[in-house]
Amino acid sequence: MGLELAPVSLAAIQRPVDRELEAVFSELKRIIASDLPNIAEVNRHLLRMRGKMFRPTLLLLAARSSGGIQPADITLAAVVELVHLATLIHDDSVDHSVLRRGQPTINALFSHQVAVIMGDYLYSRAIIELVELDDPEPLRVMARATNEMTVGEMRALMAYDVLDYSEEDYEALIRSKTASLMSAACEIGSLRAPVEQRERLRRYGLYLGMAFQITDDLLDYVGSQSVTGKPTGLDLKEHKMTLPLIAALPRMSSEERALVERLMADADPSAELIASVVAAVEARGGIAAARARAEELARQAEAELEGLPPSPYRDALRDCLIYAIERRS
Amino acid sequence: MGLELAPVSLAAIQRPVDRELEAVFSELKRIIASDLPNIAEVNRHLLRMRGKMFRPTLLLLAARSSGGIQPADITLAAVVELVHLATLIHDDSVDHSVLRRGQPTINALFSHQVAVIMGDYLYSRAIIELVELDDPEPLRVMARATNEMTVGEMRALMAYDVLDYSEEDYEALIRSKTASLMSAACEIGSLRAPVEQRERLRRYGLYLGMAFQITDDLLDYVGSQSVTGKPTGLDLKEHKMTLPLIAALPRMSSEERALVERLMADADPSAELIASVVAAVEARGGIAAARARAEELARQAEAELEGLPPSPYRDALRDCLIYAIERRS
Repeated sequence: MGLELAPVSLAAIQRPVDRELEAVFSELKRIIASDLPNIAEVNRHLLRMRGKMFRPTLLLLAARSSGGIQPADITLAAVVELVHLATLIHDDSVDHSVLRRGQPTINALFSHQVAVIMGDYLYSRAIIELVELDDPEPLRVMARATNEMTVGEMRALMAYDVLDYSEEDYEALIRSKTASLMSAACEIGSLRAPVEQRERLRRYGLYLGMAFQITDDLLDYVGSQSVTGKPTGLDLKEHKMTLPLIAALPRMSSEERALVERLMADADPSAELIASVVAAVEARGGIAAARARAEELARQAEAELEGLPPSPYRDALRDCLIYAIERRS
Repeated sequence: MGLELAPVSLAAIQRPVDRELEAVFSELKRIIASDLPNIAEVNRHLLRMRGKMFRPTLLLLAARSSGGIQPADITLAAVVELVHLATLIHDDSVDHSVLRRGQPTINALFSHQVAVIMGDYLYSRAIIELVELDDPEPLRVMARATNEMTVGEMRALMAYDVLDYSEEDYEALIRSKTASLMSAACEIGSLRAPVEQRERLRRYGLYLGMAFQITDDLLDYVGSQSVTGKPTGLDLKEHKMTLPLIAALPRMSSEERALVERLMADADPSAELIASVVAAVEARGGIAAARARAEELARQAEAELEGLPPSPYRDALRDCLIYAIERRS
């Protein structure tokens, strides 16, 4: 299938909605603006580290492929990015991360307090904007998605140190943590479309989001081209169970399993120990299995798109699938 | 005026809405319920440390004094308590507090991560319930109030170590941090009443909330009866500017001012230093001034109530003012 084509850049995918994405960024700026000096200071930093706007892109492409983009969609796309941003800020704070997108995190640059409060500020600003749109549907979808994301975060806390963490547990986790917001973005973009199309785009977003997260978790085992090309093994270092390890475990020898157990029992596992577990995961097909699952989900997402009328926007949504499973960062 | 009467107990104030408060508590339990074991575990703890339900009480009394309590009011009262709870959890996490209402905080009992995520979970559950009520008005009021509370938290971060923190800064802080939610509770309870009455109850809640917070800040200087009766001086220990100190500072001698400066320069001020600043604040009328301001606000709130039709519920709202400024914990 087409998904085996050469990687596409996000910039190319975004071209059909370039102008709208600029409007989304301005809208985001308007929404988070505050007279309070310390909020304004954090805002300047947030706007400087402007993200890839992948979720607004999904919303706008979904809107385009189901009729057209209305002014409210610009606000909705900004709200989706805002909720994503609020989640990242709380995640970084919870994980004590110091870098995000190559920039210092809010907790690192300001403080843990500022990060918790700013996440709450941005999320409650997003709700105000949704309420002002006077349309209960996107509000309903976003309220459910954001709650689902918090459930995902709680699921994530249970994914440490548990060798019997199942593939079902993992799929429930990535569905709620990552796929729920991408699915909501696609659904909100298609709220004016017939219900069948709306459901297709909702499911497309769900499968896309799951494939996206599996690919993210794979990068930990296969390395990203951006720096050294070597696997970072960060998830293993933190004892976090993700699909490559979950898939490889049942096929491991007792010696390999003992390695994994030693790693999980070690609060600060050595680079050598991590490297040998990465090697065992690779040798027992964990990486291949995770990659296959991501591709399977991308194909399911692609099948949903086939039910939509052909258009350059539908093509761009298809390219989003390639981007999701081929990206290296 | 009647506000000078003997203290009233919260239990007595709650008597006219006792049955409804039980229903609110059940509704709260229903709203936060989750199949996820770790969320359910935190929920059990939250329900065990059931709070005073002061905000639901305000909402129910406001509803009663402006017509009657509808089924949706029970859900709305639960949502107000839920938002309050979510805020407390994030506050405790941000402040690294270990005790709340004599019970261990969520961050102390579980972890900082769990506290941040559970606050987000509860808040997003509250939004879902509001959306399901299919009435944009309470949603609008709550969205604004919760955003205002986060602004208040950011203002609070600026209230440390600043000797020129003004009374205006302080009033803006307590208005957004504390009064906004109490005001929202009163406004939401009266949404079906004529606009004049709704506005009166909104303002009543605002003045009440400010008086409530000033009283809270006073307890730090005058001591609470509950334990030793001695001032805790905790705000001073943390270099936090509140009304007693702000009001006393301009009347202090240069020696007394030097004491305050020494305290602010000391990361861990001694009990003796704190006690001498408390004494200076008392001697320079800071405590009397803060108490007078709380009473003035309570009188303003009382004046708003005089515009409502007389009823036992209006009387209970009046008693809430006495409770707010006379309480010792």
